[in-house]
Amino acid sequence: MTVKIGVIGSGAIGRDHARRINHVLAGGRIVAVTDVNRAAAEAVKADVAPDAAIYATGEELVAAKDVDAVLVTSWGATHEQYVLASIAAGKPCFCEKPLATTAEGARRIVEAEAALGRRLVQVGFMRRYDAGYVALKEAIRTRTGAPIMVHAAHRNPTVPEAYVTPMAIHDTLIHEIDVLRWLLDDDYVSARVLFPRRAARSHAKLRDPQVVVLETRKGVLINVEIFVNCHYGYDIQCEIVGEDGTACLPEPMAVELRLGAKLQNDILTDWKDRFVAAYDVELQDFLKAAAAGTATGPSSWDGYVAAITSDACVAAQEREGAPVAIKMADRPSLYR
Amino acid sequence: MTVKIGVIGSGAIGRDHARRINHVLAGGRIVAVTDVNRAAAEAVKADVAPDAAIYATGEELVAAKDVDAVLVTSWGATHEQYVLASIAAGKPCFCEKPLATTAEGARRIVEAEAALGRRLVQVGFMRRYDAGYVALKEAIRTRTGAPIMVHAAHRNPTVPEAYVTPMAIHDTLIHEIDVLRWLLDDDYVSARVLFPRRAARSHAKLRDPQVVVLETRKGVLINVEIFVNCHYGYDIQCEIVGEDGTACLPEPMAVELRLGAKLQNDILTDWKDRFVAAYDVELQDFLKAAAAGTATGPSSWDGYVAAITSDACVAAQEREGAPVAIKMADRPSLYR
Amino acid sequence: MTVKIGVIGSGAIGRDHARRINHVLAGGRIVAVTDVNRAAAEAVKADVAPDAAIYATGEELVAAKDVDAVLVTSWGATHEQYVLASIAAGKPCFCEKPLATTAEGARRIVEAEAALGRRLVQVGFMRRYDAGYVALKEAIRTRTGAPIMVHAAHRNPTVPEAYVTPMAIHDTLIHEIDVLRWLLDDDYVSARVLFPRRAARSHAKLRDPQVVVLETRKGVLINVEIFVNCHYGYDIQCEIVGEDGTACLPEPMAVELRLGAKLQNDILTDWKDRFVAAYDVELQDFLKAAAAGTATGPSSWDGYVAAITSDACVAAQEREGAPVAIKMADRPSLYR
Amino acid sequence: MTVKIGVIGSGAIGRDHARRINHVLAGGRIVAVTDVNRAAAEAVKADVAPDAAIYATGEELVAAKDVDAVLVTSWGATHEQYVLASIAAGKPCFCEKPLATTAEGARRIVEAEAALGRRLVQVGFMRRYDAGYVALKEAIRTRTGAPIMVHAAHRNPTVPEAYVTPMAIHDTLIHEIDVLRWLLDDDYVSARVLFPRRAARSHAKLRDPQVVVLETRKGVLINVEIFVNCHYGYDIQCEIVGEDGTACLPEPMAVELRLGAKLQNDILTDWKDRFVAAYDVELQDFLKAAAAGTATGPSSWDGYVAAITSDACVAAQEREGAPVAIKMADRPSLYR
Repeated sequence: MTVKIGVIGSGAIGRDHARRINHVLAGGRIVAVTDVNRAAAEAVKADVAPDAAIYATGEELVAAKDVDAVLVTSWGATHEQYVLASIAAGKPCFCEKPLATTAEGARRIVEAEAALGRRLVQVGFMRRYDAGYVALKEAIRTRTGAPIMVHAAHRNPTVPEAYVTPMAIHDTLIHEIDVLRWLLDDDYVSARVLFPRRAARSHAKLRDPQVVVLETRKGVLINVEIFVNCHYGYDIQCEIVGEDGTACLPEPMAVELRLGAKLQNDILTDWKDRFVAAYDVELQDFLKAAAAGTATGPSSWDGYVAAITSDACVAAQEREGAPVAIKMADRPSLYR
Repeated sequence: MTVKIGVIGSGAIGRDHARRINHVLAGGRIVAVTDVNRAAAEAVKADVAPDAAIYATGEELVAAKDVDAVLVTSWGATHEQYVLASIAAGKPCFCEKPLATTAEGARRIVEAEAALGRRLVQVGFMRRYDAGYVALKEAIRTRTGAPIMVHAAHRNPTVPEAYVTPMAIHDTLIHEIDVLRWLLDDDYVSARVLFPRRAARSHAKLRDPQVVVLETRKGVLINVEIFVNCHYGYDIQCEIVGEDGTACLPEPMAVELRLGAKLQNDILTDWKDRFVAAYDVELQDFLKAAAAGTATGPSSWDGYVAAITSDACVAAQEREGAPVAIKMADRPSLYR
Repeated sequence: MTVKIGVIGSGAIGRDHARRINHVLAGGRIVAVTDVNRAAAEAVKADVAPDAAIYATGEELVAAKDVDAVLVTSWGATHEQYVLASIAAGKPCFCEKPLATTAEGARRIVEAEAALGRRLVQVGFMRRYDAGYVALKEAIRTRTGAPIMVHAAHRNPTVPEAYVTPMAIHDTLIHEIDVLRWLLDDDYVSARVLFPRRAARSHAKLRDPQVVVLETRKGVLINVEIFVNCHYGYDIQCEIVGEDGTACLPEPMAVELRLGAKLQNDILTDWKDRFVAAYDVELQDFLKAAAAGTATGPSSWDGYVAAITSDACVAAQEREGAPVAIKMADRPSLYR
Repeated sequence: MTVKIGVIGSGAIGRDHARRINHVLAGGRIVAVTDVNRAAAEAVKADVAPDAAIYATGEELVAAKDVDAVLVTSWGATHEQYVLASIAAGKPCFCEKPLATTAEGARRIVEAEAALGRRLVQVGFMRRYDAGYVALKEAIRTRTGAPIMVHAAHRNPTVPEAYVTPMAIHDTLIHEIDVLRWLLDDDYVSARVLFPRRAARSHAKLRDPQVVVLETRKGVLINVEIFVNCHYGYDIQCEIVGEDGTACLPEPMAVELRLGAKLQNDILTDWKDRFVAAYDVELQDFLKAAAAGTATGPSSWDGYVAAITSDACVAAQEREGAPVAIKMADRPSLYR
């Protein structure tokens, strides 16, 4: 069976997902596209989705008879409404992060889906589908013993002036917030943020770098360095320290060169290259579940937890070193 | 457009390729299967190819109206006849190696395709599609300067008793024969084989390990260690030494562990895991070209060269250390 | 000129240093030994220091005419008195850590030496002489740009029952306290300690592992994991994050093996093997300076700072996560 | 006891060894120096050997009453006469390589020492004292199983115009010839040399690079790449392939840097830095044995074998690919 997909939001990521479904993955077909900018929708149709009908609104697209499932890749502030519409229509929905721009919004989605009693939503936390993180999770399960500490780093070569201190959480740490919880199969209970001196390349409205310290229910202590002006490359590091030993996230594949008095491997500089293969895997997973009328992978609950945790981390940025408690609503049985 | 595929030979590799086309890749559909053992064909239909018709013979399958393109994954001795049938029918054909069991057979295919004047055949040399080799080729193009030497190794943990000395060439070195030629964009002119003492785990009918030395037209000196009782794992190594520096084939991705007084990465032990991702890429490439009625990637000519070179290496095994010249037919313009 | 050395305390480390001076290094000779256990002193004389006279007390040894310089390798509680005696006698003195068991004691030494106006004391912080740390310091000076953060770990496979929580500072972190200050050419201003859950192998009187967070005057944020039941090996890690890039302490030299499906390097398990070469270098440095009647390397001031900082870290262990300020006496000009 | 040393030849290496003995190592003292250029001898005395008497000739120096042992660091063509003089005088003698400039000369030394019936000569093959090779030898003994193949490389960034093809053996491969024999505890039976195309940076009188293939009595097959215009650095590689697995010579210690989109370690460019620590260890070994009136380490026999093997390799360069047998005199019992 081929799942017929409608895409809401045909910007860079929407276009890329449409291309994936039509040209890379098995089992899906783009049949509908909409965008606030109709020309953008037309262009995606012309370039990668010839069978797509163009809709005026996301709501119309969701309602369309031949649309089996929905990709929400529009502007973040509109995610909540389209995801709720998909749930109301009983259609599987893949939503790029954030699930909603507020924790309350995310909670409304959780409640709607829980009320339905069936999973329909997959949130676009692609790192769970990265082969490196998958291998790391397996190493935790079988090799390191139970985790006690995590040392992680999220480094960007540079960011634009518009990137201000809270974005280090909402746009950057958000990935670690989700993937570490999944790696550890655990929940956060507190956050604190420690700041060294500001890096010379940091902008006026950004305190960069910073170290976020998270504690989990099981007692794991996590420190994540966020450094978005690290200059040298885009670099994601994660070391798990367990009862029996440690495990590190694999470095991206690279040719080892001996050149110019250096033993050297290239480091990526563009974040888009780092998890590119994971996008294929997450969407293939979505297509497979959608064919069965449901969703798997990162859930609405995971999107809600990410929102709550992000809010706590931003609060912790203001309280410099002091811990901020992270409190969640009760987890509906659908997500247990 | 969806390319309708017929599969000749539904053993392990045929079944796996059928699964790929129906469940992993975009743009293809299995519509026909045949096998000398009809039950095997039925099983593949039942498990992964529900839309497939079962044919009594490969020739009937090739002739079937709704078959756009053919996968030849049958017993090696039958490859030549099915590939020739596909060429005769003007249908794109993906043939697992060997293209033919003799250099003469491969040459007949080359001549048939050259006479047609259009590429239809892709040979299953999947290493050219491995991300590591692709990166290595790019490093040769942009970083190391022109190649001068290659040091390579092909190691298997163990082989069955039936694996005799010439199989080290036909079944094992065959991959290096193709991929090194492609990496270097060059041709072989001579081969010699050097034998150390036999490994303790080697069988009575196998001289293992051995080092094959190849020289190319451009003057590159290649040594490839073949060691199929290396015991510790399945391990493929390749170092290019160029005018400006060296480049090594990346190791497969692995979690770095610190456990039991060892800093350690797992090494694969099963060859099937080593290039598994490359199979997806090569078949996707085949589907894309087949949709346009042609073939790209490793050609009939490459299959012919591999056969000629293998024959020379086997002859060189008999002449212990003395060089054997490698002589080819003229290359038809289709393959230039 | 050969420097004539007296050794106070002929236990394991005293004996080893005596062996070094007589059998490994140039320019020194052991002429005197004393120990509270006279038999131990006799044994060192018999085994590695045939020219040594045996003295009844450390004070007599310091006073002996033919003793040019003194090694204090006795029980920690006695270090202060012998170092003060050496200073009073105007003789260069190498003192194993701790310089004194209290910050006040260390300060008395600083004041005595400062009053004399000439350096005579070298403290046994051997890591400053480790080739790896020396290379790391050079990398900070020339490659990484100014440091902003340090991520470090000090892991032991196991500790005896007698090792209680404060010893993680006094016996373990003490090395990082000194070497990081030296690496960064900086001073500490605050400490805090964060605890994950206790490791399963930790003893009842030990909270293990822990993360010590130090801030420096220049604004560098340091986190040091201390894990003395890590099980897998003795492992010292240190990553410097600077304005332009990062640098890591080299791993100890190891043969890379491919064995049993693992790409593996041995990890040390005994701390004594980790910095063994550095002991030679530090004592050679002592002999060279002593020949000139002075001392270089880690000073009394460094010993005092280590004591003050350790006390703050132990206080921070009690205040779980809250910062403790680190305040020093004024630094005498002798140590600037 | 302090061994009183005379140095014959006060060029760069003689001066450096004199410095070592007087300022780095325990148990030796330079008491005599001679050089064909008396001013050079005076300079060494002035700079690093104040107690040294200057002698007019090497023979006089060897005969001097207070000279216990001799370092031969003069021009290669004079080594034989001074080593023979030392043997005649019954004095331990450390001789830089080559032991003699011809195999016949080396054999005369072997015969003189064998006639004496006591080892007095140590040849300056310092790699046997390198911690990396020592660890590799231990790995062969305990981890890899019996060796079957060796893949090695000896790369220099560049060589002067005066460096011609046979020097790739006499000046460069000579180190592998000795150290591989020692690693494997084996003897060579044949050599062949294979040439790829000449590197672009190679001089007119130099065929560079080349691959030397050696076979041993135990059946080990060795290939050593020699590439003295490799441009990127001074790089020594050695991989042992054994029955159970492989082991690689450790890379020199290096800080791992992340800078400028590269994960990078510096590679040495000057051969003098590569084995600098091994010089200390070999001379300490010499001093220790000399104090007992004998010599250990690389023997006259090893010097003779190196000469015979080098001659065979140079002959093999002329025979391009064809094997040349390596035949030795009977090994005197002194060297078994």
